[in-house]
Amino acid sequence: MPNPLVDDRLVDFLLRDVLDVPGLARLPAFADHSPETFDAYLALCRRFAREVLWPSYPAVDREPPVLAGGRVRVHPRLREIWPRLVELGVLTASRPPEAGGQGLPHAVAVAAHLYLMAGNLSAYALAGLTSGAARLVEAFGDAALRARWLAPMLDGRFTGTMALTEPQAGSSLADVAARAAPRNGHFLLSGSKIFISGGDHDLAENVVHLLLARIDGAPPGTKGVSLFLVPRLRPAPNGGWEENDVAVTGLIHKIGWRGLPSVALALGERGDCRGWLVGEPHRGLACMFQMMNEARLMVGAHGAATASVAYQESLAYARERLQGRPASSRDPARPPVPIVEHADVRRMLLRQKAIVGGSVALVLRAARLADLAAHAGTGAERERARLLLDLLTPVAKSFPAERGFESTALALQVHGGYGYSSEYLPEAWLRDQKLNSIHEGTTGIQGLDLLGRKAVAGGGAALRALGEEVEAARARAAAAGVDAAWGEAVGEAAARVGGLTMELARRGLDGDVEGMLLHSADYLELFSTLCVAWVWLEQAAAAREALASGRGDPDFLEGTLAAARYWIRGELPGIGPLVERCRAGEDSYGRVRPGWL
Amino acid sequence: MPNPLVDDRLVDFLLRDVLDVPGLARLPAFADHSPETFDAYLALCRRFAREVLWPSYPAVDREPPVLAGGRVRVHPRLREIWPRLVELGVLTASRPPEAGGQGLPHAVAVAAHLYLMAGNLSAYALAGLTSGAARLVEAFGDAALRARWLAPMLDGRFTGTMALTEPQAGSSLADVAARAAPRNGHFLLSGSKIFISGGDHDLAENVVHLLLARIDGAPPGTKGVSLFLVPRLRPAPNGGWEENDVAVTGLIHKIGWRGLPSVALALGERGDCRGWLVGEPHRGLACMFQMMNEARLMVGAHGAATASVAYQESLAYARERLQGRPASSRDPARPPVPIVEHADVRRMLLRQKAIVGGSVALVLRAARLADLAAHAGTGAERERARLLLDLLTPVAKSFPAERGFESTALALQVHGGYGYSSEYLPEAWLRDQKLNSIHEGTTGIQGLDLLGRKAVAGGGAALRALGEEVEAARARAAAAGVDAAWGEAVGEAAARVGGLTMELARRGLDGDVEGMLLHSADYLELFSTLCVAWVWLEQAAAAREALASGRGDPDFLEGTLAAARYWIRGELPGIGPLVERCRAGEDSYGRVRPGWL
Repeated sequence: MPNPLVDDRLVDFLLRDVLDVPGLARLPAFADHSPETFDAYLALCRRFAREVLWPSYPAVDREPPVLAGGRVRVHPRLREIWPRLVELGVLTASRPPEAGGQGLPHAVAVAAHLYLMAGNLSAYALAGLTSGAARLVEAFGDAALRARWLAPMLDGRFTGTMALTEPQAGSSLADVAARAAPRNGHFLLSGSKIFISGGDHDLAENVVHLLLARIDGAPPGTKGVSLFLVPRLRPAPNGGWEENDVAVTGLIHKIGWRGLPSVALALGERGDCRGWLVGEPHRGLACMFQMMNEARLMVGAHGAATASVAYQESLAYARERLQGRPASSRDPARPPVPIVEHADVRRMLLRQKAIVGGSVALVLRAARLADLAAHAGTGAERERARLLLDLLTPVAKSFPAERGFESTALALQVHGGYGYSSEYLPEAWLRDQKLNSIHEGTTGIQGLDLLGRKAVAGGGAALRALGEEVEAARARAAAAGVDAAWGEAVGEAAARVGGLTMELARRGLDGDVEGMLLHSADYLELFSTLCVAWVWLEQAAAAREALASGRGDPDFLEGTLAAARYWIRGELPGIGPLVERCRAGEDSYGRVRPGWL
Repeated sequence: MPNPLVDDRLVDFLLRDVLDVPGLARLPAFADHSPETFDAYLALCRRFAREVLWPSYPAVDREPPVLAGGRVRVHPRLREIWPRLVELGVLTASRPPEAGGQGLPHAVAVAAHLYLMAGNLSAYALAGLTSGAARLVEAFGDAALRARWLAPMLDGRFTGTMALTEPQAGSSLADVAARAAPRNGHFLLSGSKIFISGGDHDLAENVVHLLLARIDGAPPGTKGVSLFLVPRLRPAPNGGWEENDVAVTGLIHKIGWRGLPSVALALGERGDCRGWLVGEPHRGLACMFQMMNEARLMVGAHGAATASVAYQESLAYARERLQGRPASSRDPARPPVPIVEHADVRRMLLRQKAIVGGSVALVLRAARLADLAAHAGTGAERERARLLLDLLTPVAKSFPAERGFESTALALQVHGGYGYSSEYLPEAWLRDQKLNSIHEGTTGIQGLDLLGRKAVAGGGAALRALGEEVEAARARAAAAGVDAAWGEAVGEAAARVGGLTMELARRGLDGDVEGMLLHSADYLELFSTLCVAWVWLEQAAAAREALASGRGDPDFLEGTLAAARYWIRGELPGIGPLVERCRAGEDSYGRVRPGWL
C-alpha cells in the first residue's frame, strides 16, 4: 500500500468533528460553497499529491537545482508539475472570487495543501510563496501595480518571493541595507539579498520579488524599511520584457527542500534595477508581516506534513518488518513478530502520532481562526479570532518544526540501520524538516514573539480567550464522557501557565525585560505543550462523541483516545519543572559570560 | 583560529582534577608509564587530529566509497591516513606490552582518541573496529589463530570487522542464520550479512571478519550461535593468500560516516568460504559481547566527540557573527553585536556545553572504570568497578548519542540559514551523529539492557555502588564549597531513582515483565539525566577546588560551574514527571493496538 501522506481519517475528523469547518459554509463570505465543494477540493489535492507529487519526490531530492550561465535550472519534473499545480487552483484556493480566487476557507485550503506538502514539499513551496507574494500586491499595491502584476502571478506565469534577508543582517531586519533611490515613478535598487527561496528558476516566465529596502534618507532601524516589487524581467518600452539588473550571484546548497532553489541576489550591479513601492514608504515591515504571519503558519503546516508522511512510512515499515519476539516469550522456535509488536516501537509510533495529530490540529485551528478573523458575523467574534490567531501563530509555527523534527527522527529510528541509508526516505524528510526551525523566524524568535508580545498583548486578553477555549474543551470532554482527570489536568496546566505569564509580565513591567525574556524558550516549550494538550482534549471529546453515536472508524477513534491520553498523562506533567524553572528565575544562560563557554 | 575539536582544558581537567587518571600510573599494570607518558600520547593524538584528520574531513564526507568490480574503493585521503594512524599507535594504545601494545590506561587512550573521532570520525572508526576485533582474537582465539592473525591486525596490514547483523534478523541475534559446516580443522560458511562497517575497502591488504554463525545442528536461538574468524583472503597452500569466497553484494549509501564503507556480504556463494572457530562452540554471543560492550563505550565516545566538534564550531561562529542588538537596547544606530550576546544563543551554547561536558565525563569515567576493573589492587575493587562499568555502559552509549544529536542540531541552529547549507559543517556532523542511536544496539535496546539487566543485577549492588559514588561527589562538593542545594538535589534525585528501580524490579519479580520493561525508555532517560547531574556535581567540586587554589583557567572553571548549575538546577528537576510516569504505570504505548496507530 502506498504511503497515504496524511491520514484521511485524521483530516476529515478534524475538519468535521472537531472544528466544524463545514459550518463555515454558512458565513456569507463562503456562500458560494458547501461542505460538498470543500470535499471536492480536498479530494482533488489528495489525488494529485498521491499520484503526481509523491512519485516525484525521490528524484527531485536527489538532483538539486544547478546554476549555469547566471540562471538556475530546476529539476525537469518540477517544470511538468508547476502548470498542473496552478491548474489545480493551489495559487488561488483561498482568495475571494473578486480577486480571481475560488473563495475557499483557509481551513479547507490548508487541509488540502497538507497533502501536497507531504507529497513533495519543495514542489508545493513555490506555490505558497507565489500566493503569499500576490496577496501582498493585492493588499498593499496601488491600482497600477495590481493591474500589471497580479494576473500573471495568479495564473502561474510569474512566481513570487519574499526577499528580506541580507548577508550581514540575517534575522535582524533593522539592519536591512539594500537601497532604493527615487526616480520617475519608480526606484533604483541596489544591494544584496541571500537565502531567497524561489529567487530564480526556469519553470515560469518571470520572478517577482517582494523586497525590503531603504529609501534614501530613511530613518535607521525597522522604521525606515520599505517594501518594493522588484521583478527579474520588467516591462520594456517596446511592450515586451527586459532584464531588470537582478543577478543571481550564488546558489545555496541546501541540505533539504532540494527542489526549491535558494539563491543570493545582487540588485543593480549595472545601476539599472527598478523597483516599485508597495504600500507606504517606511511601512514595509508592517506590510511584510502580514505575509510573514501567513508564512509562519505555512511553515507549521510544512512541519506537520513532513512529520506526517514520515510517520506513515515508519508505521507501514513497523507493520511489515519481522524481527525479534515479545519480552514475555522469547522462544526462538516461534516466528519473529512485526516490530510494531515491541513496546518501544509502539512508543516511538504513538509519540509520532501524538506530535503529528497535535501539529495538524494546531495548524487547522489556526487556519479556521484566520477565516473567522476575516469573515465571522460580528466585529467581536472577528477580534477574538484575531487575538487567538496571533497568540497561536508562534506555537503553530514552532511546535510542528521542533517536535516535528524529533518525530521525523523517530521515523528514521524505527527503520533502524535501513533508516540511516539514503535508499529509504526518512533521512530526506529529516533534512527537509530541519529548515522549519530556521526560516520565517527561528524558534528563538518565535519564543520572543510569544512571550514578549502575544501572551501579554491587550493586558492578557488573548490569554483569557485561550483560557475560555480550554474551558469549552473541558466542558465538551466532560459531556462526552472523557476521563475527568484529563480535563482537570489540562485546566490546571492552563491556570499555571496563566499565572506564570502574569508573573513574567510583571518582571517586564518592573523594568527587567532581559530577565523576563530570558525564559522565552522554556515558555514557548511549556506553552506549546499546553496548547497541544488542549487540542488533544478536544479530539478526545470528539472521538468519544463519534464512538457513542457509532460514526467513524472505531480503530481511528481508539487511536485518537490513546494519543490524547499519551500527551495529557505522559507529556503535560513535564511542564511543571519548566514553569518552576521560569518562576525561580533559573538564569544560567543569562549569567554565563561569552568567555566562559 | 581553527576548530580545537575538543577543549583541551576540559580533557585535562577531567583526567587530572576530576578522575585522577595520573594516579593510575601507580598501579602495577601501568608501571612502565607516568603522567608524562600519558600526556605525550595525548599530545601526539591532538596534533594528528588537528593537522591531518580535521583538514581531511570535508572531502571524505563529500565523496563516499564506491563499489566497482566487486571491490570497495575508499577516498584516497583515507589510504594516506591509515598507515599514519597505525604508526601513531592507535591500534595498540591500551593493549598490554606483552600483546604488542603500549599499555596505556583506557582512560588515556579514550581521551586521546576523542580528538581523532572529532577530527574525522570514519577515519578513526576503522582503527577502533580493528582494535576490537584483534582483542577478540587475543581473548578467545587459540594459539594457532593468534599466531596467524594477531600481528597483521595490530600492525594495520589487516583490518577487522564485527559481522553480526543479517538482513532478516536486525537486532535479533537469536535469528542469526548464517551456517557453518565443520570440515577438517575449519568450517565452511554460508549465509549473508549486512551493515558490515569496514567490510571491504582498499586501504589495507586483508579484512578479518569476526562473524556470528550457527554450526550445523546447533540449538535454536542465541544459545546456538558461535563466533568465527572469516577472512576475505585466506592462507593459500603455496604460502600466499587466496580469495575466501566472501563477496561484497552491496554498498550501503549511508547518510553519514561516509568515509567508512558499510557493505552487504554473501558468504560461500561458491561453497568455499572458510572460517575458524573463535572460543567455544555455541558461546559466540558471550565472546562477542565483550567486544560489544567496548564498542558501545566507543559509540558513546563518538557521540561525545561529534557533539564537541560541532559545539566548538558553533561557539566560534557565535563569537564572530554580528547580528542584532540586546533586548534591552535596540537602538539601530548602535552597531550589531556578536550573536553570543543574545540570551537564546547563549542558552543553545550552554546546553551544548552541558551535554558535551557531561558526555565526555561519562565516557572517560567509564574508561577509567574499565582500567580499574582490570587492574585495581584488590578483587573487591575490581568487582566494584566492573559492576559500575556494566551499569554505566548503556548510559555512556546512549546519552551522548541521543542528547548529542540534539546538541549537534543546536550547533546547526546557531548557524541559522548558513547551518542549513552543505557549505558549513554542522549538517555533516548531524548526519554522522544520527548513527550513534542505532548501531551497536539501538537506544531502545540500551533501555532494556539498563532496566532489565544492569540496574537490577546482583540485587541492586551496582545501584548501591552508584549511590556511594553520588555520596562521595556530594561530600567532595560540600568540602569544596559548592552550593549545598546542588548536592541535595543530586542526592534526592538518586534516592528517587533508587526507589523507582526497586518498585519496577518488584513488578518484574511479580511476573509483570512487560509492565516493568514498558518504561525502559523513560527509565533510561531519567537515569541518564541523573548520571550526568552526578558527573557535573563532581566537576563543580573540582572546579571550586581549582579556583580556590589558583590552578587552571578561571574562565574555564567558571564555565564549568555554569554548566553544572544549568544541568543540576535546570535539567535534573525534569526527572520528576518521568519518575511519576513510570510509577503510575502510564502505559499508553503498552495499551495501544497496532491497528489504532
